Amino acid sequence: MARPLREVSVVFLTLEGPEGSGKTTQIQLLDRALRARGLRVVCTREPGGTAIGEQIRTVLHAHENTAMVPAAEVLLYSADRAQHVRQVVAPALRRGDIVISDRYAESTLAYQGYGRGLDMAALRGITAFATDGLTPDLVVYLDLDVELGLQRKQREQALGRGEWNRMDQQEIAFHRRVREGYLTMAREEPGRWLVVDAAQSIETVHRAIRERIDAML
Amino acid sequence: MARPLREVSVVFLTLEGPEGSGKTTQIQLLDRALRARGLRVVCTREPGGTAIGEQIRTVLHAHENTAMVPAAEVLLYSADRAQHVRQVVAPALRRGDIVISDRYAESTLAYQGYGRGLDMAALRGITAFATDGLTPDLVVYLDLDVELGLQRKQREQALGRGEWNRMDQQEIAFHRRVREGYLTMAREEPGRWLVVDAAQSIETVHRAIRERIDAML
Repeated sequence: MARPLREVSVVFLTLEGPEGSGKTTQIQLLDRALRARGLRVVCTREPGGTAIGEQIRTVLHAHENTAMVPAAEVLLYSADRAQHVRQVVAPALRRGDIVISDRYAESTLAYQGYGRGLDMAALRGITAFATDGLTPDLVVYLDLDVELGLQRKQREQALGRGEWNRMDQQEIAFHRRVREGYLTMAREEPGRWLVVDAAQSIETVHRAIRERIDAML
Repeated sequence: MARPLREVSVVFLTLEGPEGSGKTTQIQLLDRALRARGLRVVCTREPGGTAIGEQIRTVLHAHENTAMVPAAEVLLYSADRAQHVRQVVAPALRRGDIVISDRYAESTLAYQGYGRGLDMAALRGITAFATDGLTPDLVVYLDLDVELGLQRKQREQALGRGEWNRMDQQEIAFHRRVREGYLTMAREEPGRWLVVDAAQSIETVHRAIRERIDAML
């Protein structure tokens, strides 16, 4: 697949961060702010984002699928991503829309690579195949202390909001490795990453993201 | 994943071939013949073969998923395969059982590589990751004229047997490329492949397979 996907390139943003870091809220605020400026915005997510992706998401998040091996997990996330890129992200960018995705390829590198210890070179190869080489212009990482993130998520769930899925059941040590992975990737490519302390107020986090995006538009 | 999967290696056989070539029948006959000799046999299939694989199979074969892109298709088959290898095939081989799989990695190379024209190097990389490097000792290819295979399948369906899925709707030219792909792979590795003319009688095909397997046991 040699043809470059982004003939008319605008801005492709992704948000990464642990459960409880406020990705959903920040995406809503960003969406509203950009639309208020007359920009066309497509908000999407992984896994999910397409009808086929939602079916894959169901397999990934089902509590009964405890036997799932890490390699199958990687390939399912990647299948979802392949569909998502070609059906949603690339067409929107070609139309000149801004795309904001709740998670993208960097989640696979962080969770299955740094977190589960799968071979990074293999993961990068699979990711390049799945994304057809399409990388975000900016990855916003909402950084949060691991214990604090899980507490927030559990509180949400106690209030009957949010979902508690198979991924959340992983142990604390795993989530620490994932966090370190994100921070490592951000240090390696500072021009393409923005790390924001997600323990700050919603408004402060939003302002930090807006500032960086405004500089790009 | 550096550890070799096959500490106690016996025989891992796979059957490949178009719809209507008689894979199911030949596997049943082989299973019966090998058991009659006191051997332990595990018969399995792709996609499917595990509870998670059956969920993936449902996504792959659903008629409504016409929007599925080839890259997503490859990754879904590979996710199924990753689960299948680690949960079924490798444990059975470690126990010393003979494993017979209805389709395996060579299906991806034939259908998505030769058939759909996806990059073979990328497919081989994804396949190596999915299988953890486990290759069959023998790939039996039931070779059948493309038109004849589709006629057989349609007749089966008219009799209310078998299923007619999304894959079968592909055009004849695609199935011809797939067949050429199988024959090319068989020519490249004659020691690991057996091509049998599936237009012959069930018993003749069975005898040809038995002869080759008997030489391996």
